[in-house]
Amino acid sequence: MNDNIKQISKIPEPSLRRLPWYLSCVKLKAKDGDKYISSTQISRKTGIDASQIAKDMSYISISGRTRVGYDVAELIRVLEEFLGFTSCHNAFICGVGSLGGALLGDSGLMHFGLHIVAGFDVDPKLVGHTISGVPIYHMDDLKRYVSKHHVQIGVLTVPIDKAQKVTNQMTKSGIKAVWNFTPFRIRVPEGIVVQNTSLYAHLAVMFNRLNSQNIENDNSHKIALDDQE
Amino acid sequence: MNDNIKQISKIPEPSLRRLPWYLSCVKLKAKDGDKYISSTQISRKTGIDASQIAKDMSYISISGRTRVGYDVAELIRVLEEFLGFTSCHNAFICGVGSLGGALLGDSGLMHFGLHIVAGFDVDPKLVGHTISGVPIYHMDDLKRYVSKHHVQIGVLTVPIDKAQKVTNQMTKSGIKAVWNFTPFRIRVPEGIVVQNTSLYAHLAVMFNRLNSQNIENDNSHKIALDDQE
Repeated sequence: MNDNIKQISKIPEPSLRRLPWYLSCVKLKAKDGDKYISSTQISRKTGIDASQIAKDMSYISISGRTRVGYDVAELIRVLEEFLGFTSCHNAFICGVGSLGGALLGDSGLMHFGLHIVAGFDVDPKLVGHTISGVPIYHMDDLKRYVSKHHVQIGVLTVPIDKAQKVTNQMTKSGIKAVWNFTPFRIRVPEGIVVQNTSLYAHLAVMFNRLNSQNIENDNSHKIALDDQE
Repeated sequence: MNDNIKQISKIPEPSLRRLPWYLSCVKLKAKDGDKYISSTQISRKTGIDASQIAKDMSYISISGRTRVGYDVAELIRVLEEFLGFTSCHNAFICGVGSLGGALLGDSGLMHFGLHIVAGFDVDPKLVGHTISGVPIYHMDDLKRYVSKHHVQIGVLTVPIDKAQKVTNQMTKSGIKAVWNFTPFRIRVPEGIVVQNTSLYAHLAVMFNRLNSQNIENDNSHKIALDDQE
């Protein structure tokens, strides 16, 4: 284990979640042709306190220059590497329905380090075909595929009544992480990473806040709701 | 304002975020033909403490029967209504690129109450066409469209260097909520709801935890990481 990787695991998750915001901000600065960016400038663009930004940046291997700030090109390189966006993480998708098929078509994932190399489904109309250039195999071939290609990440986009069963198949096949897009709370063996991204839970939160906001407006009490993940 | 809506706004966000998990669990129970479900059963399926479940359920208008539990059909109906999944919220998408186009193709959103009625872009190859049956208009027509059709929600899937500009156009058009899929931290006027769903930030968190996990495994210290949103 080298020091660089050791360090990666130490960053608190809230700091980690803010880094992509800084990256976007610095990328815009680069697009404008600027060479340096300060914490104050990032703060102005993101609305995050400059001292918080400096603290978050302390977890990555970069130091700014007094009165000049961070080197834009270096900061982009270091942030992208730290966030894992420059590595190529192979992944497969289980459940090539509406959302799964949609994710296969999102080339943006590739630019952020996720390379979807295969899809798995049980639908005979899908198996044996390709979607957006990605081959679709039968679920029965999952284990063989994973052990042959050493894929570490499985993306879960099956209906909820299949979520746990397919998760079990995934973890038995030898993967290390499940990116769970279903609204089902899957259980995994010790040591497997689960990242939940339920679009529908986010929708519920948005609807709820929209409702609250409409009520606030009705009462003529306008409040600013802080945004969150 | 009626009492039902007033109540909706009072639920703490962590409770709100757990409700879709319970809903998935109860739906499975319904599929199995069962008529009742207890907090203990939901707890066993979701791994969430039964007392926490009872507390979360106290925010919605449903009560279980002693030794029998909740009526499955009623619980599904009440949860779906509470979460806003049974209402039809019209929305448009700004930025019909890779991810935006993918979301247009995800019919799942409709089943959870989000009806995407239009897409907006500046690409002449897209404007005037339809994707998955949804018409694509030019960004210049946004304001006119929103005021005519009274759409409250805008989905943001543009490149980061357009994110703030398009957000401004959206909020000026009269929408009330922005579902932000970009990794850019957008700023909005007071009273506008922002729901951030950055797939790429989630990817970064997953990569990081996968790295930590690989290190843990190297050190033969296996730990279970708790999943999170």
